Amino acid sequence: MTTTPFDFTPLLPPGLPPAAAPWTGLAAYSFVGGNNDPDGVPLDGLIEAMNTVLRREGRALATYNLAHGPLGYRPLRDFLVSKLKRDAGITCNADEILLVSGSLQALDLVNHTLLARGDTVIVEQETYQGSLTRLARLGVHAVGIPLDEGGMRMDVLAAALAELKARNIRPKYIYTIPTVQNPTATIMSEQRRIELLKLSQDYGVPIFEDDCYADLTWDGKRPPALYAMSGSGGVIHIGSFSKSIAPALRVGFIVAPWELMSRMLPLKTDAGSGSLEQMVLAEYCAPHFTTHVPELTRGLRAKLDTLIEALNEQFGTTAEFEDPKGGIFLWIKLPDNVDTMKLYQAALAAGVSINPGPEWSTDKAYSGSRLRLCFASPSHDQIREGVAKLAEVCRDQFGVPERSANVTRPAAP
Amino acid sequence: MTTTPFDFTPLLPPGLPPAAAPWTGLAAYSFVGGNNDPDGVPLDGLIEAMNTVLRREGRALATYNLAHGPLGYRPLRDFLVSKLKRDAGITCNADEILLVSGSLQALDLVNHTLLARGDTVIVEQETYQGSLTRLARLGVHAVGIPLDEGGMRMDVLAAALAELKARNIRPKYIYTIPTVQNPTATIMSEQRRIELLKLSQDYGVPIFEDDCYADLTWDGKRPPALYAMSGSGGVIHIGSFSKSIAPALRVGFIVAPWELMSRMLPLKTDAGSGSLEQMVLAEYCAPHFTTHVPELTRGLRAKLDTLIEALNEQFGTTAEFEDPKGGIFLWIKLPDNVDTMKLYQAALAAGVSINPGPEWSTDKAYSGSRLRLCFASPSHDQIREGVAKLAEVCRDQFGVPERSANVTRPAAP
Repeated sequence: MTTTPFDFTPLLPPGLPPAAAPWTGLAAYSFVGGNNDPDGVPLDGLIEAMNTVLRREGRALATYNLAHGPLGYRPLRDFLVSKLKRDAGITCNADEILLVSGSLQALDLVNHTLLARGDTVIVEQETYQGSLTRLARLGVHAVGIPLDEGGMRMDVLAAALAELKARNIRPKYIYTIPTVQNPTATIMSEQRRIELLKLSQDYGVPIFEDDCYADLTWDGKRPPALYAMSGSGGVIHIGSFSKSIAPALRVGFIVAPWELMSRMLPLKTDAGSGSLEQMVLAEYCAPHFTTHVPELTRGLRAKLDTLIEALNEQFGTTAEFEDPKGGIFLWIKLPDNVDTMKLYQAALAAGVSINPGPEWSTDKAYSGSRLRLCFASPSHDQIREGVAKLAEVCRDQFGVPERSANVTRPAAP
Repeated sequence: MTTTPFDFTPLLPPGLPPAAAPWTGLAAYSFVGGNNDPDGVPLDGLIEAMNTVLRREGRALATYNLAHGPLGYRPLRDFLVSKLKRDAGITCNADEILLVSGSLQALDLVNHTLLARGDTVIVEQETYQGSLTRLARLGVHAVGIPLDEGGMRMDVLAAALAELKARNIRPKYIYTIPTVQNPTATIMSEQRRIELLKLSQDYGVPIFEDDCYADLTWDGKRPPALYAMSGSGGVIHIGSFSKSIAPALRVGFIVAPWELMSRMLPLKTDAGSGSLEQMVLAEYCAPHFTTHVPELTRGLRAKLDTLIEALNEQFGTTAEFEDPKGGIFLWIKLPDNVDTMKLYQAALAAGVSINPGPEWSTDKAYSGSRLRLCFASPSHDQIREGVAKLAEVCRDQFGVPERSANVTRPAAP
């Protein structure tokens, strides 16, 4: 046949994202992404669970969804019913839980069920980058509500809802990460949750509650989920095993009243999410989840301590942040003259990857000197060395911090 | 809080599919879906592979995509490079293979990369239901080309392409399942593939080759893939491990030139497909795939024999079909007065699920008396009993077959 290469370009529809660049590997010092602590993966337990569950019911892999139907493997939904009751106060049954391919598929399913081009939604001003890019691609307007140390500010939310209503705009949802907010790591108090639910009810705007970091608090405590506190059912709740067990497993879930679930389900046209991973999680989590998570968070807290120590050493008072109560990331304010989009590029060239603030915010000016550092994946040594390199790059580019690395570099532990 | 239930209805955008009905389980005699033979799952081998790969590199589960990048686990892509070369004649490298969550995600990614509302594509007149429903939801016009015993008819395709060109319509792709076509089980000859590639080239319309059943031929032989035979790169190739290993694993793949792959990749926003399943497949398949598949197909052929025997007994000459050279389904013609959409409903009420022809065809009249029976999942006994029940229902509803079950029901083996 001919060897003239086929040109696909004229066939591409308008509006496609730019072409991907070839993958060149993770940065040597990687402070990005929801990657977890390799030492925190409960490997022995997962292997034991896998052997048990596959010996017992592995032949069910011949049937889509293990013949448990489109909501997914029933024992994992049963585990979630009890886990959500115990940890988040949620009362639901197994038919109100849909197992999905990570909470990212949950975002897509909820969005496709509720949103049309031109719609408006409310989000936290600083929020998950992937939520913002999804909304932008869908042509949906995201109104950002600023946060304080207690999460989304209810006074600003009330004003925004009133202003939108005056313009005859009914937002499709209020998206919030109330428990270990991404990227600020704030936890919304129970009192503020009551206020949020009241505003949701008053304006007829449902709440989209993303709880994917909620398991990772240092003291193991958390307020009840908004889903649990709502008497009206006007909340959609999503969660994940990515942060508590392992992100590469790609298992998340949606909790929603059947009225809405039954509209979402036909949009999940993938013949089910990976069943092997659902089986292993169910078998492992039912007996081990409550002992595993505190072990995991002890390790995460230790890495956070290393990160804070390194930032104090290398950046001094130049880097401002709150000490988070949980999670895998730190949200940092640098001096106003630091442009973290530029810092991101320069740091990457030096082998250090960071999340620049503007990618995680609807307010590019406010977030322009802020950044997110994820601390779960790098080792303690990588954290120390990476922060030292980042400080060097930052001083080279922006003149701050004025002095860094003026202390002896700690030896490897 | 209030107990007035929140009403989501006013928030739903137009065009959503109808609400799902609650899951009520598989039919007692289930002849639908790509479910496989439970005895054909290589369970011991998968368990062994899982233990090996997790002991060796399980901590990588802490990192999205196991740090192998967005194309997926490298050893599985390496296996596919050699497997596709050996079985399908495809020469590609690991960067031209994207691992996805079953070939259904492959369909979505290809569609979203190439299609816009109002576009036209060419499909086989009888084809995979899920492809037709996807196109309908996207608002894309599917032109069906009839098949004969050698697959898609090239004379009709040539005429359709000419006619579309005369109307200034350039179809976005020609979708074909050339090797064990779904639902007709035909295999397109190498000569016809050459003709198809020439038409594709002449009209500048790429080929979308769905090869997900291609491993399952009784004699282990198959023509080279269209992807392999094209000199121009104007072919997108997708495949799956669902049929050769286990459908509940949800691992498929796309092979495409990087020019197109780089446009598809940004649309895969799920942070990777399930890594555990990719690890297990790579570890199992590299040493065992070539011995496993012939064992699997022997079992499938035996079930097909049982199905054909049962049809001959129960339907006699009322049921017409070709003896397929591979796969997991039989495409059957009943007398013209049989409406398989009605038969489907009546059979389901009797505990027998079938795929009515009109759901698998662009020509509702031609397919109205046809149906698809999948034979991999039910046991030999279920096949015999289910076909007998189906014949009873069909006679009750449509008067044919005139006599059935006039032979002694075979005893359980």
